[in-house]
Formats: sequence, structure tokens, C-alpha cells
Amino acid sequence: MATEIPALVSYPCEPTTLAPDWRFENIKVSRGPKEHELKIRMVATGICHSDIVVAAIPGRLVGMKFPKVLGHEGAGVVEEVGPGVTVAKVGDPVLLSYNYCSNCDLCNMQQQPYCASWQLLNIFGEPGIFETTAGEEVPAKFFGQSSFAATSIVAEGSVVNVKDLVKSNDDLKLLAPLGCGLMTGSGAIINGASAKPHDIVLVAGIGAVGLGAVMAAKIAGCKEIIAVDRVAHRLETAKQLGATKVLDTSKESPSGGSLAEDVQKLVEGQRISIVIETTAAVPVIQECIKALGRHGRFIQLGAPRAGTQITIPLQEFFGGNKSFECHYLGNTTGQAWIPVMIQWWRDGKFPIEKIVKHFPAKDALQALHGMEDGSAIKPVLLW
Amino acid sequence: MATEIPALVSYPCEPTTLAPDWRFENIKVSRGPKEHELKIRMVATGICHSDIVVAAIPGRLVGMKFPKVLGHEGAGVVEEVGPGVTVAKVGDPVLLSYNYCSNCDLCNMQQQPYCASWQLLNIFGEPGIFETTAGEEVPAKFFGQSSFAATSIVAEGSVVNVKDLVKSNDDLKLLAPLGCGLMTGSGAIINGASAKPHDIVLVAGIGAVGLGAVMAAKIAGCKEIIAVDRVAHRLETAKQLGATKVLDTSKESPSGGSLAEDVQKLVEGQRISIVIETTAAVPVIQECIKALGRHGRFIQLGAPRAGTQITIPLQEFFGGNKSFECHYLGNTTGQAWIPVMIQWWRDGKFPIEKIVKHFPAKDALQALHGMEDGSAIKPVLLW
Repeated sequence: MATEIPALVSYPCEPTTLAPDWRFENIKVSRGPKEHELKIRMVATGICHSDIVVAAIPGRLVGMKFPKVLGHEGAGVVEEVGPGVTVAKVGDPVLLSYNYCSNCDLCNMQQQPYCASWQLLNIFGEPGIFETTAGEEVPAKFFGQSSFAATSIVAEGSVVNVKDLVKSNDDLKLLAPLGCGLMTGSGAIINGASAKPHDIVLVAGIGAVGLGAVMAAKIAGCKEIIAVDRVAHRLETAKQLGATKVLDTSKESPSGGSLAEDVQKLVEGQRISIVIETTAAVPVIQECIKALGRHGRFIQLGAPRAGTQITIPLQEFFGGNKSFECHYLGNTTGQAWIPVMIQWWRDGKFPIEKIVKHFPAKDALQALHGMEDGSAIKPVLLW
Repeated sequence: MATEIPALVSYPCEPTTLAPDWRFENIKVSRGPKEHELKIRMVATGICHSDIVVAAIPGRLVGMKFPKVLGHEGAGVVEEVGPGVTVAKVGDPVLLSYNYCSNCDLCNMQQQPYCASWQLLNIFGEPGIFETTAGEEVPAKFFGQSSFAATSIVAEGSVVNVKDLVKSNDDLKLLAPLGCGLMTGSGAIINGASAKPHDIVLVAGIGAVGLGAVMAAKIAGCKEIIAVDRVAHRLETAKQLGATKVLDTSKESPSGGSLAEDVQKLVEGQRISIVIETTAAVPVIQECIKALGRHGRFIQLGAPRAGTQITIPLQEFFGGNKSFECHYLGNTTGQAWIPVMIQWWRDGKFPIEKIVKHFPAKDALQALHGMEDGSAIKPVLLW
């Protein structure tokens, strides 16, 4: 029998402005967990910038159906398990991350973020689980979880059992956002770029992904960590979390020139060996390509809009032996990486309490607004 | 006292057409080896496409001085050693590769192809060693060796002692070209791309670099090796050396569409995981970027001309988690990689006799012509 629960539902975006239409309302959960699914009572859910990006997609154009329940940084407690589930038992606390098939050639090579069924398992969603009180279908299992809901049916592949890692409900509330943005940024530094003490890292865009990269670069002992953003308090946070230099692009250029020149000036011409780009803004990307030093690796983490093109000045890029790489999700899985981040946090090296801001779930629109205007780096909804 | 020796000298290229001006003539060797230098009696020297590229550079524009002795795939015998040399003794047979400083941060990280002093040690050349019979200065030590000369003064960093690896003068004549193009292609596959049996490799441009990649991909057991060129006999050679599919771009398109579509048709839509690009031609690069599959690595080996720009369709590239990388020299050193290639050759897995064509050094212009018109894949001059 269907139960009613509160959820943050994304209705089709406004067709011309692409403004998302979020509504906090009750929806119905039509069924319990099937094979390799779990029913999770959500405790907290981080809001990630990609929720906002997806909510602004004109769904009909790409085969995505709205209304839809997004949310992909969930934390909760197992209420019921379907057949075949081994990852957790009823009552276990869990953190949620992305889902993957475990069967394709890329999953078999431990490249789960690049799973051949990734879009299918994480983006399009599954019918027959949620519906509006008026009876309209609402696809669930976004990122295998659709965790903008007080209760959800979650794919086993998205579940990280943390019963030996978290000690309280408060831990769950704080650690909820580990499953996407922070994993993406910190994993890109450690697993993707294999950052070492000799590295000079430029992080463009200081949201949760960028700060994950800053904290991980500090953990890796990188010689310099340069944070670039246009919001002063984000740069202040970056300094607290490990940035050795900051560049505020809303202010006058220190070099009187371009962003690339400003960054070069900041590090006195030293070789920038790693760029972590989280803004997906073409002018920022192009400047960061210029700033990248000899044998440097440019790692694109921010998801670009449709139609985005960038230009690579090939002779200079080749002459400098540079790479332009697109990475997802820290090149790892939630199961592998969330325990690493929790241990860092317990050791005081991953102080996410400095960036998490809690909101009652009913105030979700305020939380979303805070993310968009830069006042909340990592809003987390409490159910 | 200066001795006269025959050499292939590059005079300044024709300023408007950029046609190289090669002259086979006697030059003077003004001095013996200084500290960490060796005097080498050359036995054979491979001609690499980059010799032709450099000979066509308007030197005055970039601070390079012509006339100049190029040549960077030398094989010979040590005649004299300078102070401090430990790599070889008088009488030892040696193969020559690029030079590096051993002191910069990139050399210390075993990234010698990306040495901070690479241009200085390999491209600009050193005065005071060679001069024309008329007394004009001729920079030497191109790639630490300037091996288009019967005798040369060579940097110790360029020397690979092969006294335990080669058995005869004929071996030296055949193995001469291992120090650059074949190392670049084979090392890109094994060290750069870490190719595995599941990989589908697309090799664009079937010169020595491309064939080095083809042979190495076969050694790595790659599932498919697709060779693309516009010269039929090069593609025939690629088949003999391991290509499982070939695409002749001088013929009618099998798909009736683009190069990318032709390649996709050849592999029946399977995921191309590695592209090795050796042509540096922008239309080929752009098509190969399109052909590259999910989580694929595009490895640029061909050196682009000044001003070359390429466009990356970022959303598709990001959505497919692709990388665009520029690699040099097989990501290794001659000292590390030449022994590997010699062992492969002895095991019958690196049959370079199928691509080497010997020419008396005095017929160097004919050898260069054969390379340009595609009739000789790897011309080797015999001194």
C-alpha cells in the first residue's frame, strides 16, 4: 500500500529561461524494495550543483521525464531490504553514492565512474516507485537513490554501509555529502592526478568539489594550492582548508593582465602541474589551459553545457607536453572512497563541518537559493 | 687539431617556401670530447621525420642557428671519452637517443622526456665543435648527438651502451633508428597508454612512429589495431606488423561518411579506447577525437606546426570521460627502452628489418626524398 512522504520534487523547468521548478510536497511511495534494492529512511541529503543543473534540463528534449525526485548525496538508515541484498541489514546506517552495473568492461577494470550503463542507472530514473498525490508518475532512483525524499527505494550499488564508521545520527547529518562533490574533488587529486608534494595545484571554482580538491591537495602535501573564485568568503574558506594562495577574480587583476598571468604572478612563475577545473565556464577553462605548466595535467570536473567548445593551442600544448582530461566522481566508488574521507575527517584533515550548512528539508528552496547565491557552500537538508 | 669528416649539413631553409637545404659535404671537427662527452665514430643514422621538420624551421625567427648538423638516431662505436664518462669505454658499440639534464624536478621524477632543459639540450645545439671548411660555425649536439656526421661529439646523456646487446656491425646498422621514432610509438602504447588486451587502438599515420605503436599494440595483445594512412604500401606493412584493420583514406570512404564513421564501421561500433595520432594534421586529429570512445585516451605524438589549434567538443568529451594527451619519446629514456626493443627484436616481435631501408650516407638526399614521398618508411644512412 502506498505511503505518503515529504519530498523535494523537480517539475519541468520553465521552457525559455530554463529556471528550475522545485516544489516541496508530499508524494506517494508505491512499492517496497525489489531485488538488490533497499528502502532507506533518509536522515540528511546534501545538495550538489548537479542537482540544479539537471533540474534545469528541458527534459523532453533528451528523453528525461519530469516531475522527478533528484538528490544524490543521501544519508539514512535501512528500513527494509529486497531479495539478494548483502550490503546492509535493517537498521544499518548508510551513505549513498552513484550506482554502476558491475558487469561492463569498464566496471570490470575498476573504472566504475565510466560504467557503460552510467546514464541509464544514474540519470534517467525508474518509474513505478514514486507518484504525486494526484497520481502522476515521478521517476525515482536518480543516482540510484533519489534522496530528496524522506524515504526512498535505493539501488544496492549506491549503498555504502557505514555501521562501523559513524557513531551517531549527527555524524550521518554531517557526512551526508560525501557521496558526490567532495568525493569528486578529493578523488581527482589523489586517484586522478596522483598529486605529490612537488605539485603546484590550481583549483578553479571553490564550491564543494573545489574544496574537496583543496583539502586533498593539502593532505597530499602539495607545495602550493591556488584557489580561484569570484566570491570572497569562499576564498576565505579555501584558505582555512589549505589553499596557500587565492585569486579573487571579482577584484582588480594583480598582474593587470589575464587570469593566467595573475596566477603565474602569484606563484612567481613556478610550474603549475595540476589544474582542477570545476566551473565549466569556457573563459575560465581557456585561461587555466594557458596557466598550466610543462607536463601539466588539466582535469575538468565541472560539467559543461550542451554545445560548449574549447580551443586547444596545439603547438604550445604539445610543446609543453600537457594533458586535458575529463574525470568523474574521483575515479573511484563510494564504497572505496567514503571510508577514506571519513577517516580523514576523524583525523581532522577533512573538516567538512566548515562548509556544511544544515536546513530543515521543508526549507529546501532557501537552501537551493543559498547555494546559487554563494552563501551556502554545501547545504544539507535534514529530513 | 681539426679533422675533416663527411656530414649531412642543413643550411637555412628557403625563406618563403621553407624548403630545407641539405648538403652532403665535408666539415671540420674542431675538438675532442670534454667532460661527460664521447667522440663517436658513426656507423649508421636513422632519418626521423623531425629532422625534416627542424630543417624547415626559419631558424633566425626562433634563435636557432643554421647551418647545423641534425640527425638523432645514431649508432656507432666509441673512439674517445672525455673526463667523468662512465656510460661506455673506447671500442664499445652504442646507440644514441635524446639528452636530458638529470637534475630538474621532472628528470628526478623519471619524466626525462619532459626535462626542463629539453630544448636547450636537444634542439639549439652547441657551438665550437663543428665548422664548415670555410670556417663557418655549425652547431653540434642536436639531440645531444648531431649524428648526421661520420664522427661526432656526443653528450653522455644520449648514449646507450649496447656492448652486451648487439653482436655485429650489421646489428648496429639495423638497430640505429631505435632512439627516437620507434621508441616514441612503442613507448606511447606500453608506458603512456598502458595498453592491455581489452584495448582497441587506432593508429593514425603509418610512419616509423605509427608502426612502433602497431608492433607494441600487438605485443600488448590489443583486441583490435586499426591503422589509418593514405599510402597503400604503408598499410600493407602495418598489416604485416600487427594491424588487424586498415583504412586507406586515399580511397572511397567505406561508410560514405567521415573518417570517424569509417573507423566506427570497421570495428562495428566497438569502443576505441586509445588513439595514437602521428600525423599532426588538424582534420585527422579532429576526426580521431570523434572516433575516440568512452573513457578513451587520445595520445598526440605528431608534432604540430606553429599556430595549430584544435577544437574540443567539451560536452561530448566530458560526457565520454575522454582525455587528450601529448606525449614525447615513449615516456621513457633510451637507456631504459632501447634494451627492451632489442629484446623484442631478438624474439621476432619487433621486426624492424621490414621497415628499415639502408642508403650510403652520400646518398642522403635520395634517402630524404624517399621518406618524403613515402617509398622509404625508415631510411638509415650508412657512414
